[in-house]
Amino acid sequence: MITDEIKKKIRAIVGPENVLDSDLERFSYSYDSSFLPLLPANKPEIVVRPLTTEEVAKIMAVAYEYEIPVTPRGAASGRTGGSVPLQGGISLSLDRMTRIVELDEKNMMVTAEAGVRTIDLYNHCAARGLFYPPDPASWKFSTIGGNVAENAGGMRAVKYGVTSDYVMGLDVVLADGTVLQTGGKAIKNVTGYDLKSLFTGSEGTLGIITKALLRLIPMPKRRGTLQVMFGSLDDGCATIHQMLQAGIVPAAAEIMDRFCLDTAARHSRIDLNPAAASCLIIEIDGEDDGALATQAKQIEAVAKKCGSIAFRAAGSEEESEELWAIRRGLSSAVAALAPNRLGEDISVPRDAFPEVVRRIRAISEKYGLTIAVYGHAGDGNLHPSVLCDLGNPEEAKRVHQAVDEIFAAALAVGGTLSGEHGIGITKRLYIAQALGEAGMRTLKAVKQALDPKGILNPGKIW
Amino acid sequence: MITDEIKKKIRAIVGPENVLDSDLERFSYSYDSSFLPLLPANKPEIVVRPLTTEEVAKIMAVAYEYEIPVTPRGAASGRTGGSVPLQGGISLSLDRMTRIVELDEKNMMVTAEAGVRTIDLYNHCAARGLFYPPDPASWKFSTIGGNVAENAGGMRAVKYGVTSDYVMGLDVVLADGTVLQTGGKAIKNVTGYDLKSLFTGSEGTLGIITKALLRLIPMPKRRGTLQVMFGSLDDGCATIHQMLQAGIVPAAAEIMDRFCLDTAARHSRIDLNPAAASCLIIEIDGEDDGALATQAKQIEAVAKKCGSIAFRAAGSEEESEELWAIRRGLSSAVAALAPNRLGEDISVPRDAFPEVVRRIRAISEKYGLTIAVYGHAGDGNLHPSVLCDLGNPEEAKRVHQAVDEIFAAALAVGGTLSGEHGIGITKRLYIAQALGEAGMRTLKAVKQALDPKGILNPGKIW
Repeated sequence: MITDEIKKKIRAIVGPENVLDSDLERFSYSYDSSFLPLLPANKPEIVVRPLTTEEVAKIMAVAYEYEIPVTPRGAASGRTGGSVPLQGGISLSLDRMTRIVELDEKNMMVTAEAGVRTIDLYNHCAARGLFYPPDPASWKFSTIGGNVAENAGGMRAVKYGVTSDYVMGLDVVLADGTVLQTGGKAIKNVTGYDLKSLFTGSEGTLGIITKALLRLIPMPKRRGTLQVMFGSLDDGCATIHQMLQAGIVPAAAEIMDRFCLDTAARHSRIDLNPAAASCLIIEIDGEDDGALATQAKQIEAVAKKCGSIAFRAAGSEEESEELWAIRRGLSSAVAALAPNRLGEDISVPRDAFPEVVRRIRAISEKYGLTIAVYGHAGDGNLHPSVLCDLGNPEEAKRVHQAVDEIFAAALAVGGTLSGEHGIGITKRLYIAQALGEAGMRTLKAVKQALDPKGILNPGKIW
Repeated sequence: MITDEIKKKIRAIVGPENVLDSDLERFSYSYDSSFLPLLPANKPEIVVRPLTTEEVAKIMAVAYEYEIPVTPRGAASGRTGGSVPLQGGISLSLDRMTRIVELDEKNMMVTAEAGVRTIDLYNHCAARGLFYPPDPASWKFSTIGGNVAENAGGMRAVKYGVTSDYVMGLDVVLADGTVLQTGGKAIKNVTGYDLKSLFTGSEGTLGIITKALLRLIPMPKRRGTLQVMFGSLDDGCATIHQMLQAGIVPAAAEIMDRFCLDTAARHSRIDLNPAAASCLIIEIDGEDDGALATQAKQIEAVAKKCGSIAFRAAGSEEESEELWAIRRGLSSAVAALAPNRLGEDISVPRDAFPEVVRRIRAISEKYGLTIAVYGHAGDGNLHPSVLCDLGNPEEAKRVHQAVDEIFAAALAVGGTLSGEHGIGITKRLYIAQALGEAGMRTLKAVKQALDPKGILNPGKIW
């Protein structure tokens, strides 16, 4: 319970205009982009919008003293409920911390506050020929703080890795308000435990990330897009596999099953090859047109060997856009098909991709549910989407059983619950199964060490 | 104090032949490859050589019960005293755990026990066209467990990163004997905190790493070596910089100052360009000879713009070996010049490389000490070697003051104490200065959470 006295203290830290506590405002901070139902219980008691790390530190000191739950929040674009304030308290919105503090061209690193939008950071660096690769689907509105807290992935992960591969240093406000600066511009650094990796992906449960130092790479000079159709999903998976084994690493490699293809085609009014059972959209990049042409030829040859039935290389920027449009429109096209869509985010060893897709199909048949399958085939991260009507209690039951079995299938083939969305609220029930007792105990020991009062994003992960 | 009763329990776990406790044997486990003096106090009470993770777990359960210090040990090739049993107890040698458990070619991953030599792992994978890049200088005898525990680097780090960039999963025996399996073959994995990164580089203070799952990449098909001479060290540094900024990333880029060049040349009986004040040895790799030739030409052009005075590309495997011989012979050539050599391992932002070298020169003059400078210029990790006679108390004092100032210089330019050797014993005094109070407190909280009795490699890091 945040008393008037505490509110007064908080207003003094950030200014009264940056503390919101009307019922409507609190409601606006009670949900995110996950598939969780709206619940009045998830309203924070107050919303606080600090401008600096120092203000965050002072807020945490107050929260620590009075044991107030604090739920950090970027753009609330998360898919697993990470920024939903399950236990009321403070919704700590970092949306005003939008400074790109420094672009260090010589060391190819950028320092940005937590509230900087991913796309703004990308554009800022791109203007100087530098490339920040992580591109979560939400990158037009997601923020760097959230990306780091969730260790966001994206389509370019197959070649360029995920957010954690770019984090060089972090400013983190700890539970008691201490400011921790960890990491730095030295590329090789083994001084002490790797705290930056510990905080990256910790979903706001170990500290509040207020600033990130991120490494950059030179921007590839040319990009190209390929579209390959296959008579089966397995042929598409095999193509990815053989490409990577041969050392041909595309910048992105997205796969869609027939259901997704049909849906996207209807949505975008595109005609489809009727024999196509799966489709790969591949982005390649390189130093010059020659390098691109070589890669395209190599990929075409591999695809042919794996049984491709159609191959197309975009001849222009517009054609490239047209090919990507299918993939980009997919999520909303699929979502439009049913009252509810439960989009999962399992990640499996690359060679288990076809097997897990087969298992998902069997689950789909067993429960009489439509499950669309698409994802980042290049790195084994797929997004099965269960289309359903959760308003129908009988169907809701089947849906939850199906989701249980999807997670079990991912674990059975050596995979994991989440490739890029995190655990948050939606996967809490499954984490013990994924990590085992020793894993859970270790996680909780770390949590207890860094957040002894349990005020940081309570109710998440477990 | 390990009583006879405890010894009996331990003998029952690993077999009596795998417990060593003669004075001579204990002495053999009292030192490593650091520059620490031999001390009888560093002898372990017993040496235990388990064969399996289960045996390690049972030993730790005993150690936990009786609060016996345990110092894990691979090949004892560490440079900072990590495997020296400062508080007696058990020296836990993992040298019998030498199985390469699985080479999963489809997923391009390898599973190896802690005692596998780095070079054996490399060769095993290379035979199937797969590349495990981390190559610490000690890779002919160092072990994977030690590499992971210290987060070992190497010459290829500039292009391929360090050990932590390849760790996908670990089996770790925790302080109380619990076996933790963390990570796995799913490439994208955000299920829970990143424990594998926490244990990687933790120097045996958080758990005993018994097995590692490591990712591999396709082996580059061609390699080439370049040697470039410059009239100044700054010109060499500038070349590295401009190469990387232009997106030309060599597989290795080593720099040597004039003193190192002279020493190595004398050692290897090679004639030197008298105008050369610094030398870059660069390894390039790629898909074919054409790609190599293009890279070589690009590097030559950048070097010329930066004032190179000689450029040579090896025309054959033998010539390549000859060029690398200078760099490889350097450490022993330098060490032979004086009774003692204190080799440091500072790591600085890339653009601070020339500045920190200038500061080291000033320190060298101030204290009248010879300090050779060489290192991995491509990633800002350098190894200043102080040549000295520690038997001379007056000189020893100057040496320690000089080392203090080298560390201070690294921190002053935004760098850190260690790029690849770890903190161990030798840098304990400096870590608080490097990490600050919040950093130290966070490290200790994590340590306390995972090793509440303080039995894991006590006396290290702080």
